[in-house]
Amino acid sequence: MRVIFTGTGSGIPNKQRNVSGILLEILQESDAVWMFDCGEGTQHQILHTPTKPRKINKIFITHLHGDHIFGLPGFLSSRSFQGGESPLTIYGPKGIDDYVEQALAVSQTRLTYDIHYEIIDEGHIFEDTNFRVFAKQLNHGIPSFGFRIEEKDLPGRLLVDRLKDVGVQPGPVYKQIKENDQVTLGDGTILDTKEFIGPPKKGRVITIFGDTMYQSSHIHFAQDSDLLIHEGTFSHEQTELATQYHHSTTEQAAKLAKEANAKQLIITHLSGRFQAEDYPKLLQEARTIFPASHIAYDFFTQSVDHY
Amino acid sequence: MRVIFTGTGSGIPNKQRNVSGILLEILQESDAVWMFDCGEGTQHQILHTPTKPRKINKIFITHLHGDHIFGLPGFLSSRSFQGGESPLTIYGPKGIDDYVEQALAVSQTRLTYDIHYEIIDEGHIFEDTNFRVFAKQLNHGIPSFGFRIEEKDLPGRLLVDRLKDVGVQPGPVYKQIKENDQVTLGDGTILDTKEFIGPPKKGRVITIFGDTMYQSSHIHFAQDSDLLIHEGTFSHEQTELATQYHHSTTEQAAKLAKEANAKQLIITHLSGRFQAEDYPKLLQEARTIFPASHIAYDFFTQSVDHY
Repeated sequence: MRVIFTGTGSGIPNKQRNVSGILLEILQESDAVWMFDCGEGTQHQILHTPTKPRKINKIFITHLHGDHIFGLPGFLSSRSFQGGESPLTIYGPKGIDDYVEQALAVSQTRLTYDIHYEIIDEGHIFEDTNFRVFAKQLNHGIPSFGFRIEEKDLPGRLLVDRLKDVGVQPGPVYKQIKENDQVTLGDGTILDTKEFIGPPKKGRVITIFGDTMYQSSHIHFAQDSDLLIHEGTFSHEQTELATQYHHSTTEQAAKLAKEANAKQLIITHLSGRFQAEDYPKLLQEARTIFPASHIAYDFFTQSVDHY
Repeated sequence: MRVIFTGTGSGIPNKQRNVSGILLEILQESDAVWMFDCGEGTQHQILHTPTKPRKINKIFITHLHGDHIFGLPGFLSSRSFQGGESPLTIYGPKGIDDYVEQALAVSQTRLTYDIHYEIIDEGHIFEDTNFRVFAKQLNHGIPSFGFRIEEKDLPGRLLVDRLKDVGVQPGPVYKQIKENDQVTLGDGTILDTKEFIGPPKKGRVITIFGDTMYQSSHIHFAQDSDLLIHEGTFSHEQTELATQYHHSTTEQAAKLAKEANAKQLIITHLSGRFQAEDYPKLLQEARTIFPASHIAYDFFTQSVDHY
């Protein structure tokens, strides 16, 4: 699992930062990539990543502000143009379906694949064999959501040395041991398999917030995230501006990461006011509170490992 | 007057070519820039040109295919975000108004300026003291227009040497001579001013075609253009494909330029199939028929001089 940021700016694109877009690669787990928000030019940015648009089978939209959705019609069209045939699901607030369908209709775009829309509300919004996804409404003036992606726990490893100790040699039986609670061996012995399997590997948790003010009611949603991605549009000095525009400061993002006991924080959605020389200070503000903070830049890529 | 190409590809963006967008700078003439089509990422491209979005006061949309319009909502929003306050007019086919308004409404974008929509049909669509613009419906499967921008003839220069010969020295009187048919000098002499003004300077003509098949009925519309901008999505070898998709070949664009007695041709909207090594051949195909042919690339800039 890893995340790739295609856009890390806020409001409008500039030469350094495109508007919002995050790719979550789950290629090993599910042979797929999920996208979170799709500001204008996201498809252009994807050209400079290893991601194939046809691998993207889910798009989660945090909210309907233009810098988070204006790249959708173009992305969807190009995915079709490039021969994408597998269906795609768009999860987002009420209105996302009408927006996309109207843009495709006016441009007479006929896609080579089906789109399913899931209009989201708070709570459990998706589950398959590997993942569960939850949504939470944030505080941004218009409906804005966060997404908590929970990987299900993985079975522990086969303790091969212990098996060999009791005389069970490698072969098809190992697969049976992995998949069953009890296995009858060739000599009639009944093997209680759990003694030969290590502890389950805890699933990873990635929480991705849409635009929002800081609120302590968000802590629980981000609890124990292996990776928390949170906006930090403004600096500490601009706390009033952040409140006025329903955004957060880098410091507030760090505060949430600390309170939620996250393992890592990536701050994104930075105001275009900032120049390269401002980032060390912004990072310092965050790290004083939560040391494992990073400030994203376009194409910033971060693996999320099992701990 | 000069044109700047922000996007010269067709259908989908690639690393070399963005989707369609052309800027026509008329800064000296009208302190403005006009834009023709606005594919996704046009606002990103504009960041790399000298053009200020607030200077763009007219946008002409040739047709509603996504690669020509999906950049509009983002461009309009950013123009507002950057403090643009002067009104803007969008000329385009039926449906362009609903498309833009719906995208702005769903994203809750409130612009700092007014947009006027002019739904176009064939014929005269705009006129001011400097320019006239005409539209013509082309042949592209869906309504697609070409635009002919005619600069009005400019008054001739003051023939200063001739004025000095008859003893009229530089001063405020020169302005009167420029602006009146007759001027009474200080000594009572009545001056017939036309003898002291050179011939009027012919206004320039730029014709910009939307996506279309070649048709001989288009010749008249492009007649005597100082600059003809025409699509050439395919090569000569792909003439059948061009017909199938209602597009033109580079050769057909050159044929039109020759038949219309244009002074220069710029071919744009090139298929993503072409690689850098294909361009010399494409250019050769065009130049064999019409020597003053160019193949556009992103940020290609061309001044249009008086001849």
